[in-house]
Amino acid sequence: MDTAPSERVLSIQSHVVYGYVGGKAAVFPLQCLGYDVDVVNTVHFSNHAGYGRSGGTKASAAELNAVFESMEFNELLAPTRLLTGYIPGAEGLSAVAGLARKLKKEKPELIYLLDPVMGDAGRLYVAADVIPIYREMLPLATIIAPNWFEVETLTQVKLADLPSLRKALSILHDTYHVPNVVITSIPLTPWLRGALPASIQPPSDEEHLLCLASSRVSSDASPQVHAQCVPLIPGYFSGVGDLFSALLLAHFRPSHPSTSTPAADIAAASLPSPITPPPTSESSAPPPVSQTQSQTPVARAAAHALATTHHILSLTHAHAVTLPAEQRVPTDDEADAKEPLRKTRRMRGRELRLVQGQAAIRGEGVLVRDMRGWEEFWSEL
Amino acid sequence: MDTAPSERVLSIQSHVVYGYVGGKAAVFPLQCLGYDVDVVNTVHFSNHAGYGRSGGTKASAAELNAVFESMEFNELLAPTRLLTGYIPGAEGLSAVAGLARKLKKEKPELIYLLDPVMGDAGRLYVAADVIPIYREMLPLATIIAPNWFEVETLTQVKLADLPSLRKALSILHDTYHVPNVVITSIPLTPWLRGALPASIQPPSDEEHLLCLASSRVSSDASPQVHAQCVPLIPGYFSGVGDLFSALLLAHFRPSHPSTSTPAADIAAASLPSPITPPPTSESSAPPPVSQTQSQTPVARAAAHALATTHHILSLTHAHAVTLPAEQRVPTDDEADAKEPLRKTRRMRGRELRLVQGQAAIRGEGVLVRDMRGWEEFWSEL
Repeated sequence: MDTAPSERVLSIQSHVVYGYVGGKAAVFPLQCLGYDVDVVNTVHFSNHAGYGRSGGTKASAAELNAVFESMEFNELLAPTRLLTGYIPGAEGLSAVAGLARKLKKEKPELIYLLDPVMGDAGRLYVAADVIPIYREMLPLATIIAPNWFEVETLTQVKLADLPSLRKALSILHDTYHVPNVVITSIPLTPWLRGALPASIQPPSDEEHLLCLASSRVSSDASPQVHAQCVPLIPGYFSGVGDLFSALLLAHFRPSHPSTSTPAADIAAASLPSPITPPPTSESSAPPPVSQTQSQTPVARAAAHALATTHHILSLTHAHAVTLPAEQRVPTDDEADAKEPLRKTRRMRGRELRLVQGQAAIRGEGVLVRDMRGWEEFWSEL
Repeated sequence: MDTAPSERVLSIQSHVVYGYVGGKAAVFPLQCLGYDVDVVNTVHFSNHAGYGRSGGTKASAAELNAVFESMEFNELLAPTRLLTGYIPGAEGLSAVAGLARKLKKEKPELIYLLDPVMGDAGRLYVAADVIPIYREMLPLATIIAPNWFEVETLTQVKLADLPSLRKALSILHDTYHVPNVVITSIPLTPWLRGALPASIQPPSDEEHLLCLASSRVSSDASPQVHAQCVPLIPGYFSGVGDLFSALLLAHFRPSHPSTSTPAADIAAASLPSPITPPPTSESSAPPPVSQTQSQTPVARAAAHALATTHHILSLTHAHAVTLPAEQRVPTDDEADAKEPLRKTRRMRGRELRLVQGQAAIRGEGVLVRDMRGWEEFWSEL
């Protein structure tokens, strides 16, 4: 039966009726991995913005606060973990910041994954006045999961070489006191590829992205940096970051002994069953011997999240190529502008195959590769 | 991989942040059973009304229509199934009725499960002006799943004996042209118990409820009635009807050969894997021989839905009894009025254990009992 105390995630992000971004990309995976999820919707839209047109409403700060206040009155503000994602305006974000501050004060051990969803690839898709609010929120976070552009936006450091990357990470760890930073989907520019140690170099000539996890374990030592290259899957998919953040939070176990599983482990073997949630289902067997004794909890969680996300993207890509021709047209801004449904149809065919991939989300058949320690990362400092 | 064409449910009902009613009780089970679900929220509340206080907002008809219109513009109104539940006011319900009419006109084979959520146990909890709108919507439905009180409300027949039950069913089938009616949670009053054939009598002296499935297979013959008694689980649980309706829709397979599985079948064996959704995963093996050749598709679906719902309720009850004393206090209106949190805490301990029961939702370890034909039901007509 199910008498184990369960963990509860409060998820605050967008809702779309059709498709999988925001809460629609995050909640189902968290549930599959055994978490009860309290779901606050910051918007209620027909579909994600990439379709070009969407209908619906944004929740005002007053509406969000009314929900939070009733939950507090009813003693329902009792998450063990908090996940925040897309929140479209400064007022709404301030309401969420107030809640996060309150929850963290009442329960300092709350695990808070803050995904500072602001933009991508040089383009901001929230109002600029959310940026300072996100900076104020950073010290509340246990983990942040910005993309490359969001790191630049938060730290005001242009990431152009290894020293600037070091500087940005130092700002996040030291100025903003974030213990764990996971930077996703980093383009492997020549300088970055040149800086990578051999153990982290991509295994083939295919195009790859880098994921980097940096963890401030003690204030005396430099943060521990782990990284992994993942093959790029061609095409534009929405909701990937939201899925990754949810999986990162789900697999994060701070109490886990600081040892790693073998590199070619099958996730299923170490995953919790849905009935006994992650934090209570630890095996009492001794951990397997491993070469990389320095795995941090966040690097371990990122390895699981990367493997599952890659599996779902592969499923989605494999599905997309089976669709009728009109749903497989390549990105072409000029053609899209002439015929709006051209883009719409392409988007529809690239919605994440989460439901079809649920066994993989539970860990079945997913090969998890450890992230590798980047021991020399800080060595020139 | 997942190249099978998948089914898609458009679900339109309430959303609560905390707990499991409306969409929160329906969407996850549908996803676990392999359906992509488009999720329209008619309200966005902190928690269900049973807590006594809840904060949040209702979507206006204009907001709902804006969502539907953008979906139509983007060619995203393409469900194979429609599920509607709690819609709080006449304007919003009219918007949903308009959408249902349009979808059904464009795609007559759309499977529409209409749950006319209006009240329970003699008490209406929606505005009375929704009643005539629900009556107008009935001819659009493939299946309706009213409770006892909602049957009385829709048909204006007081269910006091077998002839009045026959009359109400005839009105639903003949006046409103509903092919499949599933009435849930019928109290086993003495007259009803007296009318039941031996094969449907409850197997023990425990308190039971009756579930009745009536199917108009051809216009020449009387509807086929099947029924089953299920043991009553003590205590008040919210969202049970929403869960049952979602499971009923998920397990409904109109193209299924009209034969039954053995009475002591394990659901897992006949359930779709999440990767190959229900309608496409039919085994090509010959159906097993059975004594009740007359199982209708809706009776078969109801048997699965009853078994799973009972399993989830059992899990929920088993969990509730392990909680601290303050969360296990019995219903007592006087004591609740003095101390509002008394009721709140009781409600919290009785939220459905859907996440913990997800393996059962997928069919693992759930024993499905066939519903039995009630051959004599119409015999005195």
